[in-house]
Amino acid sequence: MSDPQVVHRPVLRLEGGASRLFDDSIAVERALEIRVDGRALAVTLRTPGHDEELVLGFLAGEGVLGRSGDAEGIALTAAACADEPDIADVRLAPGVVMDWARLERHFAATSACGLCGRAHLESLRTGLAPMPVGISFDPAALAALPERLRESQAAFSATGGLHAAAFLDETLALQVLREDVGRHNAVDKIAGWLLQGGRYPVRSGVLWVSGRTGAEIVLKAARAGIPVLAAVGAPSSLAIELAGAAAMTLIGFLREGRMNVYAGRERLG
Amino acid sequence: MSDPQVVHRPVLRLEGGASRLFDDSIAVERALEIRVDGRALAVTLRTPGHDEELVLGFLAGEGVLGRSGDAEGIALTAAACADEPDIADVRLAPGVVMDWARLERHFAATSACGLCGRAHLESLRTGLAPMPVGISFDPAALAALPERLRESQAAFSATGGLHAAAFLDETLALQVLREDVGRHNAVDKIAGWLLQGGRYPVRSGVLWVSGRTGAEIVLKAARAGIPVLAAVGAPSSLAIELAGAAAMTLIGFLREGRMNVYAGRERLG
Repeated sequence: MSDPQVVHRPVLRLEGGASRLFDDSIAVERALEIRVDGRALAVTLRTPGHDEELVLGFLAGEGVLGRSGDAEGIALTAAACADEPDIADVRLAPGVVMDWARLERHFAATSACGLCGRAHLESLRTGLAPMPVGISFDPAALAALPERLRESQAAFSATGGLHAAAFLDETLALQVLREDVGRHNAVDKIAGWLLQGGRYPVRSGVLWVSGRTGAEIVLKAARAGIPVLAAVGAPSSLAIELAGAAAMTLIGFLREGRMNVYAGRERLG
Repeated sequence: MSDPQVVHRPVLRLEGGASRLFDDSIAVERALEIRVDGRALAVTLRTPGHDEELVLGFLAGEGVLGRSGDAEGIALTAAACADEPDIADVRLAPGVVMDWARLERHFAATSACGLCGRAHLESLRTGLAPMPVGISFDPAALAALPERLRESQAAFSATGGLHAAAFLDETLALQVLREDVGRHNAVDKIAGWLLQGGRYPVRSGVLWVSGRTGAEIVLKAARAGIPVLAAVGAPSSLAIELAGAAAMTLIGFLREGRMNVYAGRERLG
């Protein structure tokens, strides 16, 4: 898709009795329908860009794809008008079987929160690869992350309207950063990037997210095999429980040179 | 449900080479399965509290309920263990017909983003009541809202992990404020509160939200008949488009005494 991530719209700024008209930078949000072999599976509202990663990461998180070879190709079609979704049609490789009945049951039961719900909670105990142990990170280097990543958040800086997610390796070198109006989409793009590189689940590194962490973000990180999840914002109670169940390290409030460690503190220091 | 909105969990604070263990306040996130006449419709991850409002608002947003009398009652059952969802079973009034086939098709097609997607975009042109015109709000009074609402955000103040939504009347008097780990849930609770009071769609007032605005929040406000949506954060491009299509006023970056008006500026001043 050639859609931009940022557009300009007229806005009236009101402040202290004065008003001023200017062009503001706005984060783009557009619908993308995800199809598999021509059949519609889901519609997501996302910021265009890295759509292949988004779709691959979404399908990997749902258990449809386990490696990049499971998808033979993705056909992207831009919508003819703004009210229609763009379309990404994934062609599965021969031999890869899609359990439509299971997925549709799953989606029907979990639609309100997107990708969560009972099936996912149960899968934590059954479907996850073990997390790596014996690796650790320097807290001081982790504390310096937000400052380092800020300059990579180009679209957020312009719009204030995007969530970001980044994957860093064991030395905390930045591997990839993605932005999206949807927090979960940004994480899906990271998962898709790993899948395209033949590294899903990756069993190493750190997933950094710009916002808060709920259960869904923890589950996506767990499925991608990323042992450390570090967030600028607060975790929820379920995020802490699930991180513990998945033997992950969960960090919150990573900002201003400090952090709170909610689970897996053996990987720090 | 008697579940608390905030729990305490041990956390290790790391800062400048020092570490300190303390009990942190954490926003509760738990699964709630929404059933209608005993049949499962959706699972949402929400902060417990005001569950009846959440369920009624969710169903109103989906077009299942049009007024509070459409539901005869809601049976709430707390889960026996943490891995299972709580359950809210809505008993429809005689004569209220549930179009399961339409809803399940809709959910299957829109699961990734929860409550959005093509069906909703199209419904904007067909299903919405007209927004009230000829009402206006004093920009200075609107600019003072964040300060006024801050003291009402009790759980957020403790945890930093909750989104808030509030409904204010024509004089900007606070009618109701709700908090939730899910932005959409907080807005659903407002819609449910209006429905319970026999005021859905309300065709007046202001919906204030603590975060950013995407398409889904605009659609929920439009369905609830609230002509002004004012957010602390940034809007997306689709939020601006939909607000325009629904003849709503859309305000963003409402903080520090100023605001940006992205649509419907005739209601300001």
